[in-house]
Amino acid sequence: MAPKLGIIAGGGDLPGLVAAACRAQGRPFHILALSGHADPQVIGDQAPQDWIRLGEAGTGFERLRQAGVAEVVMIGPVRRPTIMELAPDFRTARFFARVGLKALGDDGLLRAVASELESEGFKVVGVDDVLSDCLATPGPYGTVVPDEQAQADMDRGIQVARGLGALDVGQAVVVQQGIVLGVEAIEGTDNLLRRCGPLAREGLGGVLVKLKKPGQDRRIDLPTIGLTTLREAAAAGLRGIAIEAGGALVVDAKALGAEADRLGLFVTGITPC
Amino acid sequence: MAPKLGIIAGGGDLPGLVAAACRAQGRPFHILALSGHADPQVIGDQAPQDWIRLGEAGTGFERLRQAGVAEVVMIGPVRRPTIMELAPDFRTARFFARVGLKALGDDGLLRAVASELESEGFKVVGVDDVLSDCLATPGPYGTVVPDEQAQADMDRGIQVARGLGALDVGQAVVVQQGIVLGVEAIEGTDNLLRRCGPLAREGLGGVLVKLKKPGQDRRIDLPTIGLTTLREAAAAGLRGIAIEAGGALVVDAKALGAEADRLGLFVTGITPC
Repeated sequence: MAPKLGIIAGGGDLPGLVAAACRAQGRPFHILALSGHADPQVIGDQAPQDWIRLGEAGTGFERLRQAGVAEVVMIGPVRRPTIMELAPDFRTARFFARVGLKALGDDGLLRAVASELESEGFKVVGVDDVLSDCLATPGPYGTVVPDEQAQADMDRGIQVARGLGALDVGQAVVVQQGIVLGVEAIEGTDNLLRRCGPLAREGLGGVLVKLKKPGQDRRIDLPTIGLTTLREAAAAGLRGIAIEAGGALVVDAKALGAEADRLGLFVTGITPC
Repeated sequence: MAPKLGIIAGGGDLPGLVAAACRAQGRPFHILALSGHADPQVIGDQAPQDWIRLGEAGTGFERLRQAGVAEVVMIGPVRRPTIMELAPDFRTARFFARVGLKALGDDGLLRAVASELESEGFKVVGVDDVLSDCLATPGPYGTVVPDEQAQADMDRGIQVARGLGALDVGQAVVVQQGIVLGVEAIEGTDNLLRRCGPLAREGLGGVLVKLKKPGQDRRIDLPTIGLTTLREAAAAGLRGIAIEAGGALVVDAKALGAEADRLGLFVTGITPC
């Protein structure tokens, strides 16, 4: 049997999906939910769980150990914490003394947390270990495919997303007719799409390209694509979305394909060279 | 006497300032205003002028020639034109046949227009030829200077702005405590600042860094910094603004320094190496 999985849960639906997948696979699990980030309704009251503040790393490690957890997955977005949430316990303070407060909110923080977990003897695994069928696949979801203009916009988007990723800034770019309408920093993809809508010229298409950063650790921060992003892309007047095959999570591929067809947009997994 | 200057006028106050500088220098000039972009109040009704649509390049060249113009300056932002505005005359159509419609709204378009003007026998000069004392100088405007954290944020901002510029995307970046809150594409610096305000953590400062793109032609698209941007930066909770010395226009240095002091922000000209 697979070892007991610790699910360190941030926001959104994904922690619930991981728990459900564990149940379906008969794999034991224990949730360590981050209060103020994890959604109690998603976590439910049936699953074995502990709740901690972000600043309570010491307690968190202890709870995971008490629950007999061997492998750990970190899943669900954690927005930038307030100072109050962070009020660090001894273990957290030692952590920050080493990595520095300025790592906060950056990819650097997640990477540091992952190696901290490993130093405590936990093995950090990627969510795709549990939700393997959620990893984006190459080719279209649904029946709509990119036309020539969309393909050209995707190429430009890949070039810019790569460059941004190398700078450890965002992962997402919106391009219309070769013009970069917007690039993502920490505001999130849905906010990016909302502001690009009014900047886009009507009827000229445009695409959202979302890649993982070069060297990004798949275990800790895989971009997710779902119905909300698809609908925001449609509302912004875009023609479709390109995500990195093997580098993004698609929560419900069937529903995503169906909604893409309904909206007349393409969603496609690409393998940028 | 300096040759007659053609002022191809987009939006904002700058075309008026250039005209005023010509008057002060006793230099003859003729304004070619782009309707829908240039502000009739800024142009005034005293200055010698013609108005054309963006699509009327043929007429524009003719008017400039009739006015006896030898040198031309392009000044003031031109937002992305609508298709209607573009309805091209023969000369414009020939231009687009060569550069391609996809250049529209990009730096590429401005560069192409500049070389088109040169091919018609006009010499394209930079606005700093006329407004030489508006070019950003090294060091602080006003009395506030960056502290250590602001300096670190500026360094990160320079790194990202450089990378973005190399991709021919934006020129401006907002950084707080090492975290990139936002990067500019075509939405403009003031919109960037407005969306970064709610993303910034209160009391932790942050800086706006605005550089010209590597290889950017100073004659055609020098970033401008003025009171509006300064006030938006203050409203977003930032500690200050860094602009590239020799690579940005400061319209009224004295007023900018005074307002920076009043708001407690720094504005400083930097020379990124």
